[in-house]
Amino acid sequence: MAKKITSKDQDYSQWYNDIVQGADLAENSGVRGCMVIKPYGYAIWEKMQAELDRMFKATGHVNAYFPLFIPKSYLNKEAAHVEGFAKECAVVTHYRLKNSDDGKNIVVDDEAKLEEELIVRPTSETIIWDTYRKWIQSYRDLPILINQWANVVRWEMRTRLFLRTAEFLWQEGHTAHATKNEAIVETEKMINVYSDFAQNFMAMPVVKGLKSENERFAGAEETYCIEALMQDGKALQAGTSHFLGQNFAKAFDVKYSNKEGKQEYVWATSWGVSTRLMGALIMTHSDDHGLVLPPKLAPFQVVIIPIYKSDEELEKISLVVNKIFKKLEKKGISVKYDDRNTHKPGWKFAEYELKGVPLRLAIGNRDLENETIEVARRDTLSKELFKIQNIEEKIPSLLDEIQENLFLKALNFRKSMTFHANSKHEFIQLISSGGFVYAHWDGSKETEQLIKNETKATIRCIPLDSKKEEGLCLFSGKKSTQKVLFAKAY
Amino acid sequence: MAKKITSKDQDYSQWYNDIVQGADLAENSGVRGCMVIKPYGYAIWEKMQAELDRMFKATGHVNAYFPLFIPKSYLNKEAAHVEGFAKECAVVTHYRLKNSDDGKNIVVDDEAKLEEELIVRPTSETIIWDTYRKWIQSYRDLPILINQWANVVRWEMRTRLFLRTAEFLWQEGHTAHATKNEAIVETEKMINVYSDFAQNFMAMPVVKGLKSENERFAGAEETYCIEALMQDGKALQAGTSHFLGQNFAKAFDVKYSNKEGKQEYVWATSWGVSTRLMGALIMTHSDDHGLVLPPKLAPFQVVIIPIYKSDEELEKISLVVNKIFKKLEKKGISVKYDDRNTHKPGWKFAEYELKGVPLRLAIGNRDLENETIEVARRDTLSKELFKIQNIEEKIPSLLDEIQENLFLKALNFRKSMTFHANSKHEFIQLISSGGFVYAHWDGSKETEQLIKNETKATIRCIPLDSKKEEGLCLFSGKKSTQKVLFAKAY
Repeated sequence: MAKKITSKDQDYSQWYNDIVQGADLAENSGVRGCMVIKPYGYAIWEKMQAELDRMFKATGHVNAYFPLFIPKSYLNKEAAHVEGFAKECAVVTHYRLKNSDDGKNIVVDDEAKLEEELIVRPTSETIIWDTYRKWIQSYRDLPILINQWANVVRWEMRTRLFLRTAEFLWQEGHTAHATKNEAIVETEKMINVYSDFAQNFMAMPVVKGLKSENERFAGAEETYCIEALMQDGKALQAGTSHFLGQNFAKAFDVKYSNKEGKQEYVWATSWGVSTRLMGALIMTHSDDHGLVLPPKLAPFQVVIIPIYKSDEELEKISLVVNKIFKKLEKKGISVKYDDRNTHKPGWKFAEYELKGVPLRLAIGNRDLENETIEVARRDTLSKELFKIQNIEEKIPSLLDEIQENLFLKALNFRKSMTFHANSKHEFIQLISSGGFVYAHWDGSKETEQLIKNETKATIRCIPLDSKKEEGLCLFSGKKSTQKVLFAKAY
Repeated sequence: MAKKITSKDQDYSQWYNDIVQGADLAENSGVRGCMVIKPYGYAIWEKMQAELDRMFKATGHVNAYFPLFIPKSYLNKEAAHVEGFAKECAVVTHYRLKNSDDGKNIVVDDEAKLEEELIVRPTSETIIWDTYRKWIQSYRDLPILINQWANVVRWEMRTRLFLRTAEFLWQEGHTAHATKNEAIVETEKMINVYSDFAQNFMAMPVVKGLKSENERFAGAEETYCIEALMQDGKALQAGTSHFLGQNFAKAFDVKYSNKEGKQEYVWATSWGVSTRLMGALIMTHSDDHGLVLPPKLAPFQVVIIPIYKSDEELEKISLVVNKIFKKLEKKGISVKYDDRNTHKPGWKFAEYELKGVPLRLAIGNRDLENETIEVARRDTLSKELFKIQNIEEKIPSLLDEIQENLFLKALNFRKSMTFHANSKHEFIQLISSGGFVYAHWDGSKETEQLIKNETKATIRCIPLDSKKEEGLCLFSGKKSTQKVLFAKAY
């Protein structure tokens, strides 16, 4: 086999790294905390992008592009925002290098110091709302429904490929509305888009909810999120949608005249998902054999491997395979035919297993005689012989089955790892062994912080679908009106 | 009319700015030299991206992503490259901000100074070749055919929207090959892809050629380019493809073992086009009424405008339009139906003319009676009545006609502005009135510089298709073997 994957049970963290590396998804670069996304990893991200972009456009959004740099003073305009984002960031102070006196090196030219430092965007609310001021005069200019695909930088001290990197790729939606209600509707619409994408494309079940005040986006009045459970029992925040109220409109003086000619501040939302989703995808489905990809996001949904001893055999096999290949492509299925003679079939089997290709078709001399073809599913690792004739009719439904099976498997795992705690003691025990834990909480920041300090668990969200029920906070004993979702998190 | 465009003849530069602003393509931001690409401008860029991406993939390339930041020392490794790129650039020196002592501001935290400064990538050869070293051991690892869509920063002092901005969007291909010949084939293949894209999608005729040494990419052994002629008689470099020899392999120590087991340096190419193409597109086709878009890159190829006095009339018109709309969409044509009651038809006519929509369909009450529809072409500004029945059959060929007409118009313009100079005097006169000027040149850097100093003209390229002919350099009188292409340029 090409690369050996550490068993998940033995060392989860090493297992993750082995998959990222072994499946050629990404690697660390020479720049601290910045990753290189390799072609195979990027191809998965492109599939995610294409689908999300389609969903954004279907809900009325358009793309645009705003500057990479943010003048330092902009960050200072929204009080909560600056606290959250203006700390660990990349600061551009100069705009020129020059040769050193000895001519051997290049050094920063002290004479080319910027009057005002520029921050590499950690998120773009400030630069965008500075722009929206020029675009918005009247209610006729609203709503503005814009999304941006971009790179952002947050100077993280401890980084992990995809999950937490100094630079990452994302999309950030920034919308402007005439009314509070319209902005809230938009915020909810987009968390639903994310949830739909996570469940139907990533095959990753998520819990939709509201963040507690402690975990809210810096500058938001309300943060909606989707939370997923990874196979090590830790939660991962997979997407957020923020209702920003009039905070940024006030900070950047963005007003519109309403139908009655009265000046009012504009209402805002922002929402985003990032290459972090790649980490979530990996950790939701993969196993000790490597990556497992849901068919809807796989760069190749099917790989075909010929098993042959001579060139004549390969030629005969290829004749049959090329027909199957074309028929599958015609059905919109992405197929790879790996007829390289530099690697043995066994090596190829392991390679595509490692890379998570949903279906592997293998065909040898005896298959030709019997008019059969071997079909192996990556999700179940099961193999079955099919008739070659009309095999192209079977593949689409097999892919659908895999997509569904992966979702159900992940959902069952989550169910088996979701608990309700009825006492502080029980809560501590449950949290320590991992999983989602529902528990009553008194709604205060202080208690939330206390729980975090004692157990390392945070409130992942106040689920949107959880029923109201009277209870007592497990830690403070104070009254609670509903259970919230706790977990240790990435 | 919504916005007034300055006449091209009156003030070309203002005409350009008026179109960029009036057609809602882009605007300056609060950050010096950085632009905001507005949704309509970005939609055109997305069309360009989609087509180029398809062409790159069809020629065997895959996408990946490399870090935004480049350690200063990397730039220093390739001698010519550092001269060309390590001067005017954005330098990150710190990674943290903190509250000022009075708590009112945020300031750079002097304690968070980077040990080594990071440069915001002006181009990515260095960081990519630092990565390729880890990927390449054997001839089996070659070729590597990677493209990246990214933002880059070059600290330009005089900026113009799309044409020259501090930050711009582009794609950069970076390939690695076992042999010199293979790398040269790749370099030529990609300049052909660019030329194909420019001519068949942008409807912009280009001259393919080689750069002279003075104009070559910093670090390249040979630079291929495509050059287009703008309506003011100035040339614009629209794309470049570089044969980098073994320069970067040597600078970053990237070797492979060949089939005989011998270690050899790897051969490289890089190639790119940027949002500058937006400027080229605007300046190639637009007129005093605004933007003119070739149908293959228009966000909307067809706009339909109802002319009505009452809601009942609109309702009747819409019934007919909706059928046409669906039939056109089914044919893969992008259509917008603008039935807003907030704007008059005349305002809409001017608006879509300004935005360069290739075809405008207008339909009123009398048209319904006569079963006709008015079709206006943006390229010729001509109008014609068509029968409503089967109008969807006419539209595709009309769009093709417009696409072709725009190319031919631009080609004829270029022909009328292409000259051959046979004396220094004639050269100086021709250059001063604008256009492409072919002339003999002795092949020396010095003469090229002299010509530039005297006339502001540069050698745009040594055209690939120009025939060998003996002659004498117009400026030095020395021998020349072929004419080269001169022009003043953007």
